[in-house]
Amino acid sequence: MQLGLSFSDSDVSSFTPLVVLELADDTKAEAITWLLNRIRDKQQNGGAELLVNQLLFPAQDDQKSNPNVFVVGSTLQRLLNGAEDVGLFKEFQDGTMRGFTYANRESFKDFNGDGEGFLSDAECQYIIKHGLDTLRAKNEQHVPGYPKLKLYPGKSVVRRLQSKGVLIQYFPLHNKEDLKRLSFSWYKKFKLSFQPLDDIRHYFGEGLALYFGFLEYFTFALVPMALIGIPYYLFDWEDYDKYVLFAVFNLVWSTVFLEVWKRCSATLAYGWGTLSRKKAFEEPRAGFHGALGFNPVTGREEPVYPSSKRQLRIYLVSVPFVLLCLYLSFYVMMVYFDMEFWAINTYHENPNIATSILLFVPSIIYAVVIEIMNLLYRCAAEFLTDWENHRLESSFQNHLVLKVLVFNFVNCFASLFYIAFVMQNMVLLRQSLATLLITSQILNQVMEAFLPYWLQRRRNKKVHKRMRRLMGDKELPLLGQVQLETEMNTYLGTFDDYLEQFLLFGYVSLFSCVYPLAAVLVVLNNITEVYSDAFKMCHVFKRPFSEPAANIGVWQLAFETMSIIAVVTNCALIGLSPQVKAYFPESDTQLILIVVAIEHVLLAFKFILAFVIPDVPKHIQVKLAKLDFDSLEALKKRVRYVWNKILTCCNLPSAFFFFF
Amino acid sequence: MQLGLSFSDSDVSSFTPLVVLELADDTKAEAITWLLNRIRDKQQNGGAELLVNQLLFPAQDDQKSNPNVFVVGSTLQRLLNGAEDVGLFKEFQDGTMRGFTYANRESFKDFNGDGEGFLSDAECQYIIKHGLDTLRAKNEQHVPGYPKLKLYPGKSVVRRLQSKGVLIQYFPLHNKEDLKRLSFSWYKKFKLSFQPLDDIRHYFGEGLALYFGFLEYFTFALVPMALIGIPYYLFDWEDYDKYVLFAVFNLVWSTVFLEVWKRCSATLAYGWGTLSRKKAFEEPRAGFHGALGFNPVTGREEPVYPSSKRQLRIYLVSVPFVLLCLYLSFYVMMVYFDMEFWAINTYHENPNIATSILLFVPSIIYAVVIEIMNLLYRCAAEFLTDWENHRLESSFQNHLVLKVLVFNFVNCFASLFYIAFVMQNMVLLRQSLATLLITSQILNQVMEAFLPYWLQRRRNKKVHKRMRRLMGDKELPLLGQVQLETEMNTYLGTFDDYLEQFLLFGYVSLFSCVYPLAAVLVVLNNITEVYSDAFKMCHVFKRPFSEPAANIGVWQLAFETMSIIAVVTNCALIGLSPQVKAYFPESDTQLILIVVAIEHVLLAFKFILAFVIPDVPKHIQVKLAKLDFDSLEALKKRVRYVWNKILTCCNLPSAFFFFF
Repeated sequence: MQLGLSFSDSDVSSFTPLVVLELADDTKAEAITWLLNRIRDKQQNGGAELLVNQLLFPAQDDQKSNPNVFVVGSTLQRLLNGAEDVGLFKEFQDGTMRGFTYANRESFKDFNGDGEGFLSDAECQYIIKHGLDTLRAKNEQHVPGYPKLKLYPGKSVVRRLQSKGVLIQYFPLHNKEDLKRLSFSWYKKFKLSFQPLDDIRHYFGEGLALYFGFLEYFTFALVPMALIGIPYYLFDWEDYDKYVLFAVFNLVWSTVFLEVWKRCSATLAYGWGTLSRKKAFEEPRAGFHGALGFNPVTGREEPVYPSSKRQLRIYLVSVPFVLLCLYLSFYVMMVYFDMEFWAINTYHENPNIATSILLFVPSIIYAVVIEIMNLLYRCAAEFLTDWENHRLESSFQNHLVLKVLVFNFVNCFASLFYIAFVMQNMVLLRQSLATLLITSQILNQVMEAFLPYWLQRRRNKKVHKRMRRLMGDKELPLLGQVQLETEMNTYLGTFDDYLEQFLLFGYVSLFSCVYPLAAVLVVLNNITEVYSDAFKMCHVFKRPFSEPAANIGVWQLAFETMSIIAVVTNCALIGLSPQVKAYFPESDTQLILIVVAIEHVLLAFKFILAFVIPDVPKHIQVKLAKLDFDSLEALKKRVRYVWNKILTCCNLPSAFFFFF
Repeated sequence: MQLGLSFSDSDVSSFTPLVVLELADDTKAEAITWLLNRIRDKQQNGGAELLVNQLLFPAQDDQKSNPNVFVVGSTLQRLLNGAEDVGLFKEFQDGTMRGFTYANRESFKDFNGDGEGFLSDAECQYIIKHGLDTLRAKNEQHVPGYPKLKLYPGKSVVRRLQSKGVLIQYFPLHNKEDLKRLSFSWYKKFKLSFQPLDDIRHYFGEGLALYFGFLEYFTFALVPMALIGIPYYLFDWEDYDKYVLFAVFNLVWSTVFLEVWKRCSATLAYGWGTLSRKKAFEEPRAGFHGALGFNPVTGREEPVYPSSKRQLRIYLVSVPFVLLCLYLSFYVMMVYFDMEFWAINTYHENPNIATSILLFVPSIIYAVVIEIMNLLYRCAAEFLTDWENHRLESSFQNHLVLKVLVFNFVNCFASLFYIAFVMQNMVLLRQSLATLLITSQILNQVMEAFLPYWLQRRRNKKVHKRMRRLMGDKELPLLGQVQLETEMNTYLGTFDDYLEQFLLFGYVSLFSCVYPLAAVLVVLNNITEVYSDAFKMCHVFKRPFSEPAANIGVWQLAFETMSIIAVVTNCALIGLSPQVKAYFPESDTQLILIVVAIEHVLLAFKFILAFVIPDVPKHIQVKLAKLDFDSLEALKKRVRYVWNKILTCCNLPSAFFFFF
């Protein structure tokens, strides 16, 4: 629980600062006073009972730095109580994972003395975030000083301040020592070993650790395919009709891959105690707005937005917009094919080195255009989904993921499907696939890691220079760190990372039988991806709040859908192969019927497999059942104990007994 | 809660008898004494705290009747406490359904005075059954008098007695007055109105009420199809190529049908309070056996049976057996086709009335043979599944349903698929379908209702005669009723009823486009089915214990699988129709590709639809969320109340507080 900071700047903070809170620099003083009081107030008075201090930067001449930066910390007692409130699971003495309760604190592993060091930094920060998020308005009509910032009883204060830009951001501080250790074991030494997932989880939380776990699993799962792919590529270079075996391998692989991952993910989540953790009550989004009305569930007054209006926005604006974008994407594809034909013709008219390079140019341009379109569309999709005014973050995320996935899928794969099944040109398919894959990988790595890193370095240097000029030789590590991290980019969640893996999975599972090197390329990409992602998490972005997660959520569904499409595609590719066609020399009809029949059997088999294989491994099921059983037994004992205590020591009204 | 019985035979029973318990007539006296004591013993001593009395029949000369027949009843207080134990949901004052608690009893609707009449008969009987089922062995090593009937702490006594045949049966008594009322409103008056589902649920429980609800829903859903079918049949008699439109209608219908049913079922289950009810802990089956070992979850000593052994039995015996039966079924099908061809040839050689009747004979024989094979296979499947030694009833049921469904599906539909897609003979398909459907319906009605009814009447008369001879003019209604009901057949659950509907659904959704009258026939069948099923429940079978159910369980999955097969089949039938073929005069390939593409789109659409349409209607979701919210609020209030009480009135060790 200690941040590796010296507190020589002790006027700044008398406690371990864990979270930084940045308000707009023109925030009215009365609002600040009110907010700090509410944060400091006791929990029984509806406060968050946290410690908070203003960070006072030395006066500056040339560049104004924001005076309204605060650091938030907490007492150990509050953190331990908070751990119970948020339903944290910790390791029990017997090695199982159990919901932490303050009463049983002594029975948890690694709980020594007063509990110092029991909770990890990330957990403490998560508890503080929860405390801030659930700080609710009492009887205030509006935020003091801001008559337009209406409040109603029960509204999350932080969400309201955020929605109107008074609260610019709040984020957890990095812990330099832990970070050093983590980055050393993670990516600093080059080694052939697994990632330190437990340490990653410890520092960044379960959501991110699961992403890296998935990335690793995916990469390892691709290795056999890559190993088969290399000889295929080397010895059957021009023999496109030999791909049937590889397609069959793909079929089996893409099905088994996801089923096994579900079980791995359950095992990881059990070990981290998130598997059986209940979902917390979900707050309305910060941006959600509506006329004041009554919540049909709680009966309390709060903004409501009629779902019919939202449906109208979705079906009359969003859906047509998505369709328009899809049309645009098809149009661009057609332009690409025109370019492609033009390049081929040019090459045939005058075959030399220049024109043979020209052959690849349309594909490269197309790959770049696809990336740009994806980026633009992403912004539009975010704007639209925000405008749809979803009440819950989860519903917002689902609509966003759906929009982005459909477009990305069409944008990236439409041309490949067109080449494969309409043009039936396997040579062109192979060439397009290779160009698309390589170009998008290079672009991705640049956009994702090198560019932000370069920008970050420039910024760091500037901040360092400024700090040195201001404070001379004085060592003010906390001030420096806060200043630095405040200006770092915010990590926007695992969405883009999963999306990239999703598209790579698509390239591999759909078409790798035609271009066996695809798996090799993806493996290479993912190895660098691990390093660049690790680096960007540690040094490019602000530390994100840890986020408990039991699985990869909606992405599991997305990958499964892709694997179903992969079955259909691979069957169709098999049916198209000259090798298979040779068996049915006289009749296409028979061939098609057989391929379709096999495809149906495979799809049925896939569904049965998904149904039969339990998502959670047997030994973990037993552990979970045991946990349930134990807690039931404990409850019974507790009721008996309380009952006896009450009977022996006090005279309560008889109705009281029935409360148990 | 009153059974409509006069208790002039007051020496027989001093309480309202609700459940009859029949032990083997040679049961040892010490075992009987022990069992009765355990049943009567207080709950805190591990007993069931129920009232139980022996029924003493007058001595008989010629026919010995079993002396070991007992009636079980209960005090009102025990029933109300039991209602809380089993987690019964009742209507609250505000119209919502809430888990009944004794403490809040006054806040429930219809709770007057001491609660007389608050619980229905079926509920009381369910509570008594639960009390008997959860009567557990304490430290007994074996059942007194039966050293071989081993017991271990925690083993359900009733299950053990049942497994060795000491306990022959236990069943709830009919309530003659309620039954009269119910049967009057249900099937005695012919009317065009819905069934009294609430009354059925009140008398027979949710499981059966849901079956009748489904039967009704299915029948009504078929009416539009039947209405379209009649003109189709009348005007397009010989025009088989006009069935495309009807196939499209089938496609849409079978998808919408099941989605809407899910919502109807949720609405019904919410109204009956079973939707949000948690599943009770499942006891091992009565027939489950194994060597004593340790349960990995509870750590207690109990019989365990290695799942590897079970897997061996399943894969080495059951699966080969099922495959053999399927082969047999195919073989019979082939014999049928031989007969069919012989009949057609005979007709063509010598067309007259006799030979034209002969045309239908093979189909009729085949339909009868199918029914017989289904029956035989059913017995074998039950034997095998029992031999697989599943620990839980639910796992037993799933394996049984799977075995029976696969065989029934193949047995009933294989010939139709063969005719449709291999022989592509639509005239024969129509004829076979009609014969199969009509024959199996007639057989079903006879086997299911008339035969048992006739047997039952004979038995009733015999019992009445015997009773009259024995007791002369004395009125002993309870004795007579018990004697009568003991000898009635036991209703074995809704399995056969759902299976019949499943097959009918198959006939309609798969092939009704070729034979539009199918829907009409099924509607007619189901109307008589409602009446005959209602009659058989009321008068042919023993009253079954009510069984809480929130949905139709595994049958939903079975019907959904059938509707997926229906999409494939209907698409294929459309592709085969001359009407569609006419559009692609030169190329079959193109036609097949288009049909396959459309089929894939339809399947995808079906899955998306199933995913998008919420299973529980919005307004019920809100009600459920409100319930959750209210109970959370109530818990908070209760904790605060208890806390204050304790603070104000007694001095407990501080650790005590953390128990809340």
